[in-house]
Amino acid sequence: MLRKKRIIEAACFMSMLFFSLTIFAQEPPKQEPAEYVNPLIGTSNYGAAFPGPIAPRGMASISPFNVAGSKNTPLEKDSQWLSNPYVNENKFLTGFSHVNLSGVGCPELGVILLMPTTGTVETNHLKYGSTYSNEVAKTAYYGLDIDKYKVKGEFTASKRVGVSRFTFPKGQANILLNLGLGLTNEEGAMVKVVSSTEIEGMRSVGSFCYNSPEDAYPVYFVAKFSKPATNYGVWKKTPKYDGVEAQWMGYNGKTRIMKNSIKTVVGDSIGTYFSYQFDKKETVEVKIGVSYVSIENARDNLEKETADKPFDTIYKETYDEWNKELSKIMVEGGSYQDKVIFYTALYHTLIHPNTLNDFNGEFPEIKRRKIGRTLGTRYTVFSLWDTYRNVHPLMSLVYPKQQSDMIKSMLEMYDENGWLPKWELNSTETFTMVGDPASIVIVDACLKGIQDFDIYKAYHAMLKGADQIEDNPLRPGLKEYIEKGYLSTNYSGPVSTTEEYNTSDYAISLLAKALGEKEDFKRFSKRSLSYQKLFDKDLKLLRPRLPNGKWYEPFDPIAGANFQENVGFIEGNAWQYAFMVPHDIKGLMKLMGGEKPFSEQLQKVFDINQFDMANEPDIAYPYLFNYVKGEEYKSQEMVRKLVREHFKNLPKGLPGNDDTGTMSAWLVYSMMGFYPISPGDPLYTITAPMFDKITIQLDPKYYKKENIVIERESITGGKIKDIQLNGKSINSFFITHDDFVNGTTLKVIQE
Amino acid sequence: MLRKKRIIEAACFMSMLFFSLTIFAQEPPKQEPAEYVNPLIGTSNYGAAFPGPIAPRGMASISPFNVAGSKNTPLEKDSQWLSNPYVNENKFLTGFSHVNLSGVGCPELGVILLMPTTGTVETNHLKYGSTYSNEVAKTAYYGLDIDKYKVKGEFTASKRVGVSRFTFPKGQANILLNLGLGLTNEEGAMVKVVSSTEIEGMRSVGSFCYNSPEDAYPVYFVAKFSKPATNYGVWKKTPKYDGVEAQWMGYNGKTRIMKNSIKTVVGDSIGTYFSYQFDKKETVEVKIGVSYVSIENARDNLEKETADKPFDTIYKETYDEWNKELSKIMVEGGSYQDKVIFYTALYHTLIHPNTLNDFNGEFPEIKRRKIGRTLGTRYTVFSLWDTYRNVHPLMSLVYPKQQSDMIKSMLEMYDENGWLPKWELNSTETFTMVGDPASIVIVDACLKGIQDFDIYKAYHAMLKGADQIEDNPLRPGLKEYIEKGYLSTNYSGPVSTTEEYNTSDYAISLLAKALGEKEDFKRFSKRSLSYQKLFDKDLKLLRPRLPNGKWYEPFDPIAGANFQENVGFIEGNAWQYAFMVPHDIKGLMKLMGGEKPFSEQLQKVFDINQFDMANEPDIAYPYLFNYVKGEEYKSQEMVRKLVREHFKNLPKGLPGNDDTGTMSAWLVYSMMGFYPISPGDPLYTITAPMFDKITIQLDPKYYKKENIVIERESITGGKIKDIQLNGKSINSFFITHDDFVNGTTLKVIQE
Repeated sequence: MLRKKRIIEAACFMSMLFFSLTIFAQEPPKQEPAEYVNPLIGTSNYGAAFPGPIAPRGMASISPFNVAGSKNTPLEKDSQWLSNPYVNENKFLTGFSHVNLSGVGCPELGVILLMPTTGTVETNHLKYGSTYSNEVAKTAYYGLDIDKYKVKGEFTASKRVGVSRFTFPKGQANILLNLGLGLTNEEGAMVKVVSSTEIEGMRSVGSFCYNSPEDAYPVYFVAKFSKPATNYGVWKKTPKYDGVEAQWMGYNGKTRIMKNSIKTVVGDSIGTYFSYQFDKKETVEVKIGVSYVSIENARDNLEKETADKPFDTIYKETYDEWNKELSKIMVEGGSYQDKVIFYTALYHTLIHPNTLNDFNGEFPEIKRRKIGRTLGTRYTVFSLWDTYRNVHPLMSLVYPKQQSDMIKSMLEMYDENGWLPKWELNSTETFTMVGDPASIVIVDACLKGIQDFDIYKAYHAMLKGADQIEDNPLRPGLKEYIEKGYLSTNYSGPVSTTEEYNTSDYAISLLAKALGEKEDFKRFSKRSLSYQKLFDKDLKLLRPRLPNGKWYEPFDPIAGANFQENVGFIEGNAWQYAFMVPHDIKGLMKLMGGEKPFSEQLQKVFDINQFDMANEPDIAYPYLFNYVKGEEYKSQEMVRKLVREHFKNLPKGLPGNDDTGTMSAWLVYSMMGFYPISPGDPLYTITAPMFDKITIQLDPKYYKKENIVIERESITGGKIKDIQLNGKSINSFFITHDDFVNGTTLKVIQE
Repeated sequence: MLRKKRIIEAACFMSMLFFSLTIFAQEPPKQEPAEYVNPLIGTSNYGAAFPGPIAPRGMASISPFNVAGSKNTPLEKDSQWLSNPYVNENKFLTGFSHVNLSGVGCPELGVILLMPTTGTVETNHLKYGSTYSNEVAKTAYYGLDIDKYKVKGEFTASKRVGVSRFTFPKGQANILLNLGLGLTNEEGAMVKVVSSTEIEGMRSVGSFCYNSPEDAYPVYFVAKFSKPATNYGVWKKTPKYDGVEAQWMGYNGKTRIMKNSIKTVVGDSIGTYFSYQFDKKETVEVKIGVSYVSIENARDNLEKETADKPFDTIYKETYDEWNKELSKIMVEGGSYQDKVIFYTALYHTLIHPNTLNDFNGEFPEIKRRKIGRTLGTRYTVFSLWDTYRNVHPLMSLVYPKQQSDMIKSMLEMYDENGWLPKWELNSTETFTMVGDPASIVIVDACLKGIQDFDIYKAYHAMLKGADQIEDNPLRPGLKEYIEKGYLSTNYSGPVSTTEEYNTSDYAISLLAKALGEKEDFKRFSKRSLSYQKLFDKDLKLLRPRLPNGKWYEPFDPIAGANFQENVGFIEGNAWQYAFMVPHDIKGLMKLMGGEKPFSEQLQKVFDINQFDMANEPDIAYPYLFNYVKGEEYKSQEMVRKLVREHFKNLPKGLPGNDDTGTMSAWLVYSMMGFYPISPGDPLYTITAPMFDKITIQLDPKYYKKENIVIERESITGGKIKDIQLNGKSINSFFITHDDFVNGTTLKVIQE
């Protein structure tokens, strides 16, 4: 999902390309998975990844913030829609933000900005900002030199704590904590210097996509400094008054500096400085613990996770944690670059959903009506319209405990709020995008054997979303959908939404069947096929209908490409949605007139350049040739081509917005040679792996076998000749999840 | 001290006068001192008193807030300089503020505004504001009917808690807590609904007189409601953005309503509502505890002081406390109206300085570098340029324990800050007005026998202020003053400042003498007379000199009347400062050429209408005829005339700004028939009492006698014939403090 897409100037790309090549040319000597990760991938081309450190599914992270100051940066947060705190082609740094989202399409978080400077304290970021050089981004570590101040900055993070190490030259050193600057228009902060080594406060964030502004919420923090400041202070920019009352204020519209005080200061444009007088080169470490519950919890998170540990220890611990996670999939063969893009993609799938609960288990419940407490992990950032397609299926296979905890978090949300999540973000429901994807995620996991949650509660939650006609925030237009089988143009994106509801209904039917709920099974099976009423036989495409049932016209199937708004579709057009009925590809084929017209129409999407690798509706298309006997090689070729074309070891090495790991998950699957072709169905379809051997470690709590090994046997790298499970040909390009995880070796034999 | 003075439209006065007369006409049956208090006195004519409840020297108070909305109120806070949350002639009420200053010349506090409404929640005060009627103001109680909503509001307070009782009609009732609205331009607040019966938060205040904006500081609060709200929420007005980024925000510049959430919200324009659905007339009580230290302390203050006590109990307790304090002076005879103005004046002297410390003893130290803790009372709001003249001398006599604690607070400030206070306000030093008055306050008390503080520390603190030439925040221009004996026109208000320094130096000389510090005694005695160098023999007035020693010209002695800025004087002119050398009236008399020219010149001040009853420099003038043998009757007449002219049982019944009780203290003394004519000197001068008998109870910890009785014997109320102490004529219109407090009865016999 990407809310807005921009054309980046060619010039930027060129300079970036040159820069990137110089950095990434050499292969490092070691071979641990975590060493392959290049966090700069996806930091250009609106990938919206950030290059700074984060722990697996961490709450805190650190990103260099270089999107402020329209005079200084080509891509500037206030002059255009930017959903990330860092853009690789920008060069004007104004700090390091401590809560960040990765790969989202809307601006959010990107606040609590730390910035080292030297000399006299300057509080205006447009003045204190600097260029930087010698950028180093790797797993759990980011470093750079800040040109203007000759300060070296290094960063790492534990799950809830961002850790900075600044090396200052001799003289006055300052560490600014800017609470005014942030990625979005959301404002408001509080700060209090507790002592010469500690600051506490909060910052208001929220209004993701500038939706639901009333759900803006606080993020709390505590900052601890390894050395006591010689001087400290708080600044506050006074709002500008007009008229008589302005005359009373000599400080009208100006910044006030409040020195060495421990008072609480609130405001939209505030910050603190800690200053030092160094008579030689000196290092200061700053730890910032965050919490969505309270300052006390932020302090507790900081203490419990990092206590007296120095920077290097924390870096090592987080690196090891990443390496352990990434090692769940070991790849052999393939180029260094392939390993880099593969492990970086896997890394990107392990960022969101992320941890919401504090170390003590507390978290804000949905809508922030209560503080809850979990004994496990409360997950947040569920971009489900994106992630139901492949991220969660990947988690079910490789990280089933995490997937189980994510489902438990979703069910907690249901308990708290009465509804499963749609696009949940730090306990706000942003209601971004369409459909009712939570059901698919849960059913998919359940049918893959992840069943250590309250399945009946989940089932009832799904039914509520699918059946409650009035006041249903998940499924607008449900009444019409149930009555007619589709949404008419009375609703936004009626075709897309109908397809999404169909897919969810299909997932529900699968669970109903498994639970022996025959009536529901029948009902939802039937509902899942109602998209067929939108099939225009002449166009061989789905097409919106007016409320009176007639086709919407004039109808241009191309309209809606490149995220243009259009009647009928959300973030796409008729071509990009034509095949988005993964549960009924055979039905669709029939509608289209059989295998051949189906295959031709599918091929046409690519031929007329309507395939969009950068968004979700059509990302499974390349795999759909597998449904056409004898044309499976087209899927193999197309997948390989797309991988090569869109995924690179470069900042622009993602096709677009990563969508909290969805693009990355696509790559992980595609490089391993299989794909969860119909989310909800425990089924994979197979293409050629891009490594010689892939070993997926299985969690013994959920799976019987220790691991799955995928082996590639190839002479020329051509078409797949045979696919064998434990030495026996399966005679299919599809394999069930059960067969897959209970086999030992899947051998793919290419020509 | 009054920073700005305005001319109030005659029309306002007329309507107010009519209104007031209807209220104050009848005498109540009971006779307790607290029953005479009319808190509406001083709420017009820029008296700057507020009519709502406060405990003696309370930290919290409640004032109706009717100064917002320029369309609705003649005297509006943003369209002119207003230093009070309530103006009697205004009629548009927008809430009830919970921290307020009484009788100051600069806007400050007037925040944490509670407002009951009914029907749909409206958050814009210009829309939810209402007229009101049936206003009742008495000791510890204020009540009114809010016309628009038919809600009865009643208010009382304990020392750190404001208590409201709202009686709502059937239907939806709302209690708004507006943290955006306030008396000054200072902004910024934080709020969190803790539960359906509790709110916590803070509000930024400070920048008294729009000076020292960097010293703005937080006031914390906790509000508890007697009934759980059916619904609650927080509102926040979003700042207005321009340009591209404004397009993203459907809520740009609009108010967001955040429903039933317990999240922390910060911003400049925020507030909360608690809503109820009542099916009959219902009452809700709201207690708001405040603290300048923390939310926790605000909660503790609330719990410890009011716990489960209902409104009526708290009212009774605070009333009793007032009655006990006011009963230290019992008056007999005199009219009901005289008792009203007398006890209201005494009440006004017991508001500031007020308590700063929380129930647990904690308070913010000066500049808020630390939280201190006291076992006694930490006092704040020291408007010393005003109060050194008569308020503190009155405290020394009638409330010596309080005066002692105030001195201890001043010495704590010296410990914390390195300097005695000048105009201290909630632990900020506002440096408002001129001179170095703390020394006078301390010496005056000390020489009156209040000596239970560290006198040597006090002495050294005084010397530092008087002698440190560089970086002396108390005495700007000290170098020139010491070298030349006066400040030249290089400095603001050089004549006024020279006189103030002289008066302080005189006080220091008195203490030096008492301590046997002969050198200091000589030095400061000499310094205290240096004003004489500014005496212009031709004009018989003090006159500014240029840096080169020549007279400043052209010089207009009238310039500076009515608070106009002028060269030479602060808030006054040459006539109003001509006699402001209370310690050297005899020297001044000599300079002027003896008793006759002195008397003539003094009389001229009144004759040419240059006497200003509403400001401090000349308030002792009426008493100065006592220095002229045979003309003492003029003082008697003049004091009586001024009392009758300027002090009335009316909202405009103070001559102007009460200056934290200074005008009121003048009245208390003047009605009792004596005055502390030379602050620092333990000396009173005598005029005719305005009651038949006055009994001042003495504190046995400081005084030997139980009380002092002043009796008036009069046939026609004419000139004083004799003054007798314990039956023996004293043959003087002056009496030392020692003689006074060690006598038993002072009888003043009039013709």
